Amino acid sequence: MSGNLRNALAEFVGTFIFVFAIIGAVNSGSDLTPLAIGFALMVMVFATGHISGAHLNPAVSLGAFLRGAIDAVTFVFYVVAQLVAGALAALVSFALWPAPEAPKEIDLGPAFLVEALWTFVLVYVVLNVATTKSNVNNSFYGLAIGSTVFVGAVAVGGISGGGFNPAVALGLSITGIFDFGAYWLYFLAPLVGAAVAAVLFRVLNSEDRLPALES
Amino acid sequence: MSGNLRNALAEFVGTFIFVFAIIGAVNSGSDLTPLAIGFALMVMVFATGHISGAHLNPAVSLGAFLRGAIDAVTFVFYVVAQLVAGALAALVSFALWPAPEAPKEIDLGPAFLVEALWTFVLVYVVLNVATTKSNVNNSFYGLAIGSTVFVGAVAVGGISGGGFNPAVALGLSITGIFDFGAYWLYFLAPLVGAAVAAVLFRVLNSEDRLPALES
Amino acid sequence: MSGNLRNALAEFVGTFIFVFAIIGAVNSGSDLTPLAIGFALMVMVFATGHISGAHLNPAVSLGAFLRGAIDAVTFVFYVVAQLVAGALAALVSFALWPAPEAPKEIDLGPAFLVEALWTFVLVYVVLNVATTKSNVNNSFYGLAIGSTVFVGAVAVGGISGGGFNPAVALGLSITGIFDFGAYWLYFLAPLVGAAVAAVLFRVLNSEDRLPALES
Amino acid sequence: MSGNLRNALAEFVGTFIFVFAIIGAVNSGSDLTPLAIGFALMVMVFATGHISGAHLNPAVSLGAFLRGAIDAVTFVFYVVAQLVAGALAALVSFALWPAPEAPKEIDLGPAFLVEALWTFVLVYVVLNVATTKSNVNNSFYGLAIGSTVFVGAVAVGGISGGGFNPAVALGLSITGIFDFGAYWLYFLAPLVGAAVAAVLFRVLNSEDRLPALES
Repeated sequence: MSGNLRNALAEFVGTFIFVFAIIGAVNSGSDLTPLAIGFALMVMVFATGHISGAHLNPAVSLGAFLRGAIDAVTFVFYVVAQLVAGALAALVSFALWPAPEAPKEIDLGPAFLVEALWTFVLVYVVLNVATTKSNVNNSFYGLAIGSTVFVGAVAVGGISGGGFNPAVALGLSITGIFDFGAYWLYFLAPLVGAAVAAVLFRVLNSEDRLPALES
Repeated sequence: MSGNLRNALAEFVGTFIFVFAIIGAVNSGSDLTPLAIGFALMVMVFATGHISGAHLNPAVSLGAFLRGAIDAVTFVFYVVAQLVAGALAALVSFALWPAPEAPKEIDLGPAFLVEALWTFVLVYVVLNVATTKSNVNNSFYGLAIGSTVFVGAVAVGGISGGGFNPAVALGLSITGIFDFGAYWLYFLAPLVGAAVAAVLFRVLNSEDRLPALES
Repeated sequence: MSGNLRNALAEFVGTFIFVFAIIGAVNSGSDLTPLAIGFALMVMVFATGHISGAHLNPAVSLGAFLRGAIDAVTFVFYVVAQLVAGALAALVSFALWPAPEAPKEIDLGPAFLVEALWTFVLVYVVLNVATTKSNVNNSFYGLAIGSTVFVGAVAVGGISGGGFNPAVALGLSITGIFDFGAYWLYFLAPLVGAAVAAVLFRVLNSEDRLPALES
Repeated sequence: MSGNLRNALAEFVGTFIFVFAIIGAVNSGSDLTPLAIGFALMVMVFATGHISGAHLNPAVSLGAFLRGAIDAVTFVFYVVAQLVAGALAALVSFALWPAPEAPKEIDLGPAFLVEALWTFVLVYVVLNVATTKSNVNNSFYGLAIGSTVFVGAVAVGGISGGGFNPAVALGLSITGIFDFGAYWLYFLAPLVGAAVAAVLFRVLNSEDRLPALES
């Protein structure tokens, strides 16, 4: 299997499991839901990182592309795999859980702000822990990345619902947990945050010349 | 002591402690029960990994066998040790906790689906974090494996009870936490998931030729 | 960009995100708030450590200065960046969350004691896990540092509110979560604890001659 | 400072903080109390491991002595430091928290069983993750050790209160959280568990000839 196809398959599997776990955790009503969501990402990042780099998020792939870790063709392969996986996880979830009575209500201004800001944090963390020479071969990258989503879900989840990821938001919008009419926000705001993170990463790591994370 | 006997003893001790901790955590009624269950597995994986590979689960041993990490004789030693440990943990637990009033009620279709799907996730994570050249000598394998069970307990525990492991399910069925009449499901579905995970692992890691994890 | 400016920018970004996350987590009312606060620090320590050493706390910078890991000019750059970040996070938070009805009420004696004692613990942990030869290249420093704040928030948060950091306390005092009239305590007690930690660290690691953590 | 004095001081500081954090966490009434207790141990293990080996527990020191990692003189230094630290933490806590109305009530048989069994687990984990050649230079030892106490606090804390450590139990008995009249049990049962763990460790790691962990 060619590298891009293999990597896209790994991104598909990882994103599918991540989004499926989010839907299940939201439906569980557990007090631990935000931690389960963050650790679901951690687990799939650790399991997939050595294959595809484990973006599992179009905003992360955009950040990796702007940082120079992947090329445009790879970017397209990854984003398509992630979005299809998010949508498919939502469809499978209909066999297991009922649709919510009403989607999360949001105020557009604050929701856009926190989706952009926290995706900035997520991509900033990813670029620093998983694509720099200084942190090569560390064992904490998945814990750092997954925990960023856990913290965001607690800190700003009440405002936007906590997407930080257009593939996750697609799945949650299909299930009715998020309002599909606001999907443009959940798609656009993370990309803005990711772009800012990539720029700041380059400013702070200007001598860094790591070869692309993905093989 | 021969390698297989020593390893089977390590699998027995690890699985006994894991299943005992699950039964105690379920009886505690704590909000942290799913996390305690996942971290119980993490702890025993870290403590046992250097001896036997720390499968602690017949489905993981099946995945390791299909992936080529252990041979058929070792597979039998491991599975027998795991199942005996699960049963014995249940018997010991009767000295400490009363039987539940009624076992977990399940719908067979959804329960089979999530037991197969999440055991697929568990074995996929194990094979990728603990048996590939790319991830050799990492310090996260136990955290990733244990957290997979934590996430599954939150995300799909409401549907199936959350076994993902025929040895765990045997212990929980003996205690009456699971319905013994449905044990065939808790035995069979994980093996299906494990087999699929082993196949997918080979597709995604086709050049990988790591020597067996177990010594 | 000069080293001190670049490092101060990294400290600014990391501290801003940390304080912003604390304010959001406190406003969430979640049972997981203390864990989210500790893991917010963990995440930013892992993301920033390779750039500036990830103090994110004037008390930690004081400990690093007294331990000989940074010089006086760097100390000033760091503390200014941290305090400005804490204040700015509070100002941004006004766009998202209302001010609390009343600040945390404290008894000065016990509050001073636990702020000094737990900041001592935090700086003791930082110096031992992140600035000694014995622990070079470990992957646990962020987990240890962040979890120290989580544990402190649970153990003594009821007494002082749980600052352990003059930059955090500045942000929380501006938002009204802490009483601004007691800010002197939240500023002074951590510095006392940090100084004691630096002395004890030198006693226990007398042969240790690690070059400064920061580059 | 001589090695034994320096190490005993490190054991004193680490055990004091650990026991102080337990008392604070119990008094907090937080849902996260068991996790805070386990992570308090994790933090002090990571901070102290490179100095004294971070036993922080007479039962662990007994296991290390029986396993051959420390000599008899060191064992005495460590245990005295740990017990004094536990007692002192209790005395300091009286300045911050009231005594509980009544101590934890226990049934002697089940309480002895779980204190012995779970301390066996704790010492088994410590010896395997922190004193074997196979796991040298790992970054997970503190997470594994601390999480063992977290899991035990959830799984069997309802039965015995969850000591697993004569120094912790001394502190909790002085505060009145544990019944002082049952301290013999909290002292004796962990030592029995530790001895069994040391024997089993030698059986399972018979070729292991690691130099002593402590320097």
